[in-house]
Amino acid sequence: MMITVDTFQAYLKEKISFIENNLVPALEQQGVPSALYESMKYSLMAGGKRLRPMLVLAVLEALDKPIERGIPFAVALEMIHTYSLIHDDLPAMDDDDLRRGKPTNHKVFGEATAILAGDALLTRAFSLIAEQYGERADVSASTTVKLIAELGKRAGATGMVGGQMADIEGETKQLNLEQLEFIHRHKTGDLLIAALRGGGYLAEATEAQMDALTRYGVCIGLAFQIQDDILNVEGDASELGKAVGSDADRQKATYPSLLGLAESKKRLLALIEEAKAALAEAGIEHSALSPLADYVRNRNK
Amino acid sequence: MMITVDTFQAYLKEKISFIENNLVPALEQQGVPSALYESMKYSLMAGGKRLRPMLVLAVLEALDKPIERGIPFAVALEMIHTYSLIHDDLPAMDDDDLRRGKPTNHKVFGEATAILAGDALLTRAFSLIAEQYGERADVSASTTVKLIAELGKRAGATGMVGGQMADIEGETKQLNLEQLEFIHRHKTGDLLIAALRGGGYLAEATEAQMDALTRYGVCIGLAFQIQDDILNVEGDASELGKAVGSDADRQKATYPSLLGLAESKKRLLALIEEAKAALAEAGIEHSALSPLADYVRNRNK
Repeated sequence: MMITVDTFQAYLKEKISFIENNLVPALEQQGVPSALYESMKYSLMAGGKRLRPMLVLAVLEALDKPIERGIPFAVALEMIHTYSLIHDDLPAMDDDDLRRGKPTNHKVFGEATAILAGDALLTRAFSLIAEQYGERADVSASTTVKLIAELGKRAGATGMVGGQMADIEGETKQLNLEQLEFIHRHKTGDLLIAALRGGGYLAEATEAQMDALTRYGVCIGLAFQIQDDILNVEGDASELGKAVGSDADRQKATYPSLLGLAESKKRLLALIEEAKAALAEAGIEHSALSPLADYVRNRNK
Repeated sequence: MMITVDTFQAYLKEKISFIENNLVPALEQQGVPSALYESMKYSLMAGGKRLRPMLVLAVLEALDKPIERGIPFAVALEMIHTYSLIHDDLPAMDDDDLRRGKPTNHKVFGEATAILAGDALLTRAFSLIAEQYGERADVSASTTVKLIAELGKRAGATGMVGGQMADIEGETKQLNLEQLEFIHRHKTGDLLIAALRGGGYLAEATEAQMDALTRYGVCIGLAFQIQDDILNVEGDASELGKAVGSDADRQKATYPSLLGLAESKKRLLALIEEAKAALAEAGIEHSALSPLADYVRNRNK
């Protein structure tokens, strides 16, 4: 399927709706205390770009495999992304009251429930993959084990959680570009890479395709964060659903603060070009992965 | 191997040391921010009965399988148990300053790091199972997937996390015995059941053996909690490493408060007898699982 700039908005909309239809059914409800279930559902359905699940589906499409195969893994990624936002927003962490224009989880359900909802979403991500692929004939048990190893490595202490830890430690320090990149490569990049590599495992990608997907993921992960930093300088608060200029107020190290705005935009563009070059080398550039790379740069929220 | 009351203390000591030798090597250190690593290690090595890993090893012994096969799963269980203690001790949850006579994780490392260390231990539990069994010839990928599904189900919203949620909600209510049992069956019992059933999967248990292990787990899980409640009434604070009488002070619903001390002890004994009867029906009573059931009742900490 060839996706042009014109059809991409419709593509995004369709995929977001497809993904969101699969989120709540993946939560367990039977035997779960209702406040816990509601808290999990609240954050899982609080909107968002659904970029990680979208990448899983796009890899399957790019390699001519049915996207249905990606659903459990895609949903698991969104659960892990959601838990990380719930915990990051807690008073002991970033202490945020709003997320995407809505009250954060602990503001609605209280801190204890928010902590537990995060724990439960993280746990459910893994059991979902094991349960649902365990019953499917089109995904082998050995692929399922690889998906879980990949996801755990990218989401845990060596990945996303490690990045968040470095981010918190960095708030009291003057960071250089290398330290800033460590934070973003792990805090944001690793879960995107897990989406792409997991999609690759599910689509039985060749080693060359796997390498290309990984390189693409590294590039769009950093690009995503640079665009986040740029939006915090010159974005529209009503589009973003959060305050603009907050990084500068907090004297937070960002790409614009370390490199300047013009140089940050140049680097952003170079990363998107490199991401697309990786796709082209593996022969998978005629897929949604190309406009998705542009979208990481052009988004306004 | 026949284990008597006389040799059981030596057995416990040997197994605890064997388990503890395997805990720290299972943590990833390379690329992990050092404060995060230290925080994870601190709580993982803060002592404890190591009951969940011990049950995994005991099932393998009972079914004449090498205990080495149980290590990754046993360590994963202890990581999940440890993360649950770190999060339960947080100010927003039980707000405890001491655990086993030592300062709780957030008292030493701060709340943000404690939340992240818990998240990272939970994540590592799953990636450890996937990585380590993924490389072993004696455990199939399909068994590995079953282990992860079992662990996720027992540790998440339908299991341990759900039990903790019900426990927190119950603090402001007058609970009846059924509600109290719901809390304990999930908060404490489910992870013990996961240990036993996971051990069963690893030891290629028959269906009858699996049922017996599950029934044994349900019984010792409740028994464990009744003994906890009894120790909170008549235990020795210095042995326990925490205050005695705190449940009564908080007007917390417990077995002694709902049934009285004498009836609680009677019920405790009956559960231990039922646990042993389940073993006998499956022909696995001549194993450490029998003295382990007595130990749940006779422990003084």
